[in-house]
Amino acid sequence: MSNAKALPPLESAGTRGAVPCCPPLTERPMTAEEAGSAARMFKALGDPVRLRLFSAVASHEGGEACVCDISDVGVSQPTVSHHLKKLKEAGLLTSERRGTWVYYRVEPSVLAAMGSLLGPPSVA
Amino acid sequence: MSNAKALPPLESAGTRGAVPCCPPLTERPMTAEEAGSAARMFKALGDPVRLRLFSAVASHEGGEACVCDISDVGVSQPTVSHHLKKLKEAGLLTSERRGTWVYYRVEPSVLAAMGSLLGPPSVA
Repeated sequence: MSNAKALPPLESAGTRGAVPCCPPLTERPMTAEEAGSAARMFKALGDPVRLRLFSAVASHEGGEACVCDISDVGVSQPTVSHHLKKLKEAGLLTSERRGTWVYYRVEPSVLAAMGSLLGPPSVA
Repeated sequence: MSNAKALPPLESAGTRGAVPCCPPLTERPMTAEEAGSAARMFKALGDPVRLRLFSAVASHEGGEACVCDISDVGVSQPTVSHHLKKLKEAGLLTSERRGTWVYYRVEPSVLAAMGSLLGPPSVA
């Protein structure tokens, strides 16, 4: 983690989201730039339906899911699509069309980066 | 974590927030109840100023900070107070008045719970 402080947020391939670059929240106060990048991701998960959709993709076999697999969250299909788009824009999901269906996948590096933000300090 | 799935959200002492009860997002799809509880916390961190304030408290010596220690985030004092209140309402911070100042502290169990939500599955 020693170089992480100097790094700008990494652009997530194929989205306009970004992977947070930052050390654990408990290690030092975040800069404005770091907070802007990370807050976008937290905000994307700050809606119960989006969080359920994200969890449904993240926990699906093989780490990816078709829309047809994950629409059981009590809202309409257009609303599901809207929320999936928001998760993509935040850099949390990527998508790929194969034939009729669009498949969604969680970017593992994003999950790891968010987890480490909330984890214990890297120096004790 | 084996019992965690059956547990309802724990009320956080002294706030109307709640500690998420839930297994990692990657383990199984979240229920509506779990998502409601966890989304409230993510939403509270989904604002850059709130995230910086939270990080300032979390990284402060001794794990607590006075408002006087953490107001250097480029917004007015009333705005700082407003955001700290939101963080308290979400169950992420607790506060205690001592003399002139109010001291804020991160509930460690909350941080751990959020970190584990974003962590790897508890079963490989």
